Amino acid sequence: MRAPDIIRKKRDGGTLARAEIEFMISGIASGAVKDYQLAALLMAIVWRGMTADETQVLTESMLNSGTIVDLSRVLGPKIDKHSTGGVGDKTSLILAPVAAAAGVLVPMVSGRGLGHTGGTLDKLEAIPGFRIDLDLVRYEQVLAKCGLVLIGQTAEIAPADKKLYALRDATATVESIPLISASIMSKKLAEGIDGLVLDVKTGEGAFIQELERSRLLAETMCKIGAGMGKKMTALVTRMDHPLGRAVGNALETREAIECLRGDGPADLMDLSMELAAEMVLMAGLASSLEQGRTLCGRTIADGTALERFKGVIEAQGGDPRVIDDLDRLPRARTTVDLVADRSGFVVDLKARPVGHAAMLLGAGRARAEDGVDHAVGVVLHKKPGDRVSPGEALCTLHVNDETRLAEARSLVASAYDYSDVPPVASPLIVERIARVPSTRPVPASERKGDS
Amino acid sequence: MRAPDIIRKKRDGGTLARAEIEFMISGIASGAVKDYQLAALLMAIVWRGMTADETQVLTESMLNSGTIVDLSRVLGPKIDKHSTGGVGDKTSLILAPVAAAAGVLVPMVSGRGLGHTGGTLDKLEAIPGFRIDLDLVRYEQVLAKCGLVLIGQTAEIAPADKKLYALRDATATVESIPLISASIMSKKLAEGIDGLVLDVKTGEGAFIQELERSRLLAETMCKIGAGMGKKMTALVTRMDHPLGRAVGNALETREAIECLRGDGPADLMDLSMELAAEMVLMAGLASSLEQGRTLCGRTIADGTALERFKGVIEAQGGDPRVIDDLDRLPRARTTVDLVADRSGFVVDLKARPVGHAAMLLGAGRARAEDGVDHAVGVVLHKKPGDRVSPGEALCTLHVNDETRLAEARSLVASAYDYSDVPPVASPLIVERIARVPSTRPVPASERKGDS
Repeated sequence: MRAPDIIRKKRDGGTLARAEIEFMISGIASGAVKDYQLAALLMAIVWRGMTADETQVLTESMLNSGTIVDLSRVLGPKIDKHSTGGVGDKTSLILAPVAAAAGVLVPMVSGRGLGHTGGTLDKLEAIPGFRIDLDLVRYEQVLAKCGLVLIGQTAEIAPADKKLYALRDATATVESIPLISASIMSKKLAEGIDGLVLDVKTGEGAFIQELERSRLLAETMCKIGAGMGKKMTALVTRMDHPLGRAVGNALETREAIECLRGDGPADLMDLSMELAAEMVLMAGLASSLEQGRTLCGRTIADGTALERFKGVIEAQGGDPRVIDDLDRLPRARTTVDLVADRSGFVVDLKARPVGHAAMLLGAGRARAEDGVDHAVGVVLHKKPGDRVSPGEALCTLHVNDETRLAEARSLVASAYDYSDVPPVASPLIVERIARVPSTRPVPASERKGDS
Repeated sequence: MRAPDIIRKKRDGGTLARAEIEFMISGIASGAVKDYQLAALLMAIVWRGMTADETQVLTESMLNSGTIVDLSRVLGPKIDKHSTGGVGDKTSLILAPVAAAAGVLVPMVSGRGLGHTGGTLDKLEAIPGFRIDLDLVRYEQVLAKCGLVLIGQTAEIAPADKKLYALRDATATVESIPLISASIMSKKLAEGIDGLVLDVKTGEGAFIQELERSRLLAETMCKIGAGMGKKMTALVTRMDHPLGRAVGNALETREAIECLRGDGPADLMDLSMELAAEMVLMAGLASSLEQGRTLCGRTIADGTALERFKGVIEAQGGDPRVIDDLDRLPRARTTVDLVADRSGFVVDLKARPVGHAAMLLGAGRARAEDGVDHAVGVVLHKKPGDRVSPGEALCTLHVNDETRLAEARSLVASAYDYSDVPPVASPLIVERIARVPSTRPVPASERKGDS
């Protein structure tokens, strides 16, 4: 088998056999396949796409490039959630403790923010002392103790994905549904979960903006997971406006804690609770979504969700006092208000420029290797549907470095749109896709060579 | 400027600016652009194509990556010929001495064979002692002394092409008209020529098989050359059957010498003389193609072409006695005849399986890094139009290593097709495209940065 022949087959629109995909992916570690050959194959995949079977095999090959965590010693249903990324999306920090408090085990391996989107790891690291780099032994221990654990991708998990992801970033081959699906699912399937709830974003601030493609991405991932014996549910949700009011790491962590206290913005709270209810339902702890919502709501009301979050912060080396004293989170030196110059209703607040503005202030990173400033960001006082009057503060920029403040400020201003009549609110959740496991989980050893 | 942005632009079907193409090509030498980024760009170019302007700029960037030979001290019209490669195509060995004897200076930088196609360098190296690795000083000296010089690509000539060609071979991105055109033309434009005659093959045994695409390749290369101030003529010629009767290095060199003696097969002789006449016309040494043919024919009749070939062999370290004693060329240990099992007319003799069979015998290489056996190959006694009877020899295989003899033999047998009625002969030359220089030659220093 030769890499150029495999690349040629995909280039010409052919369907790759299992052995061919496995050859390319195993060649990453062995060195038999060169970076430039992978890059050419990636571009050919962006061009020609992949069938469902090819995507499934690609995911399995990437998964099998590393350790598949065995959490069978931790008894109970293990369910995770993954979001494809948005602006102000801090649902993980809310739903993980909620679901855990409702009895779900939540082993969560998350990522960092890139470009205009934020990342769960950056928000967690805003908590003084919080460690996301636990090894897999400690990962299991924290899960067993707290009912949830929140870490970053370790070297053992899907190393082929790490390599491919870096290559995709450098070669403009990120935007491909099979490649995105395989990348996400190879990591998630390594976590040791029984099921996964997906939050696939769509709209202006999402990675995939067109609803049809977002739906396809959701279906592709659900199919892959079900094919690997996992329960899968995906919500396709709108990412037109930032979720909640805070954009920026510590600001978002603060807002998440406020939600866990029962005092958060409605859109953020609703989506977090809906995703948590899906997890509870998937775990078999509720017989209906409605019952799941009730169970989850109770964990907020009785403070057990907040307690869970405090527990995991402590277990992962963070300062648990932030739960009761939000001022222990990092704060920016300066705040700058953006003020309305007209009256009317806010009818639009585009997520992407707001996320981009937060990045310019230092909250996000333009390139994967950049660092972030946890303290800075944007807090939105006015969102679509809100009435504004001249002189009222639309939002507050939290600033440490003023170098790109003017640019950030004008970006946020450009994100707002007004009208004399209030907008018609559209529902956040567009679609729900659920799939039951389509096969028994088959060990990798049995699957090889059956192409 | 960032490589991923440039790749993304081409991926999405955009047109690259001069500065973007120059950034990618100059980045090869500087290391600013990685191999995997080039590979992704190459695949995006195979996918999206390039405009005439992009192809022109790509060629210039590759040309400017190395030395452009200055042959101005050697007075006279300098014209080269390039073929896109075929089976049994030894026209260079015939037309270069013929054109030189007619007064053209022929500075020829050639390549090696790959796959089913042969290469001029391998045929020359079949001559004992012949050196194709002259440096550029010696290149100029031999041209001045002999009127022709026949070498391989040096490290100074278009190093970016060397790199890109190796990458294309490893990433299945060879078959792209802009990439083929830029690769060929960047090398040819570095030779120090005033004009170039192209032999663009089309048909079953050609690299580009469809006539429309062969014509496009011819037009693209002519346009590039004319845009760089060169006279350009292209003949699109059929490569359905092997050219001449010999396929394999020493066997082809022998046949070329027979042609120079006035004793070669008609198809090979006709095409070689037609290409030589084009060179003579382009050089301004004849006022019509008809007059060019007469001049060239005279160099065969009076033995001056053969003398020129003897001269260049001697100047490049080869044994000039091969001219008079063909048995000094390497010979295979064994010959095996393939015999006809029916009577009728040969109506087809596919070039590709014959070339492939010669490769299996050791005459060609499957990969660029392989060596070749100069002695082996196939001599075709029966070609389309010839009548055969049972028991007559169709062809003779010249063999040293019998490992793949059976395979080679059955390939050649499969190349033949018969009928009870003779075939209608189709002309070898399908089309002639000529272009005069469209601009004055602009020095590289003036061209940079005007995108």
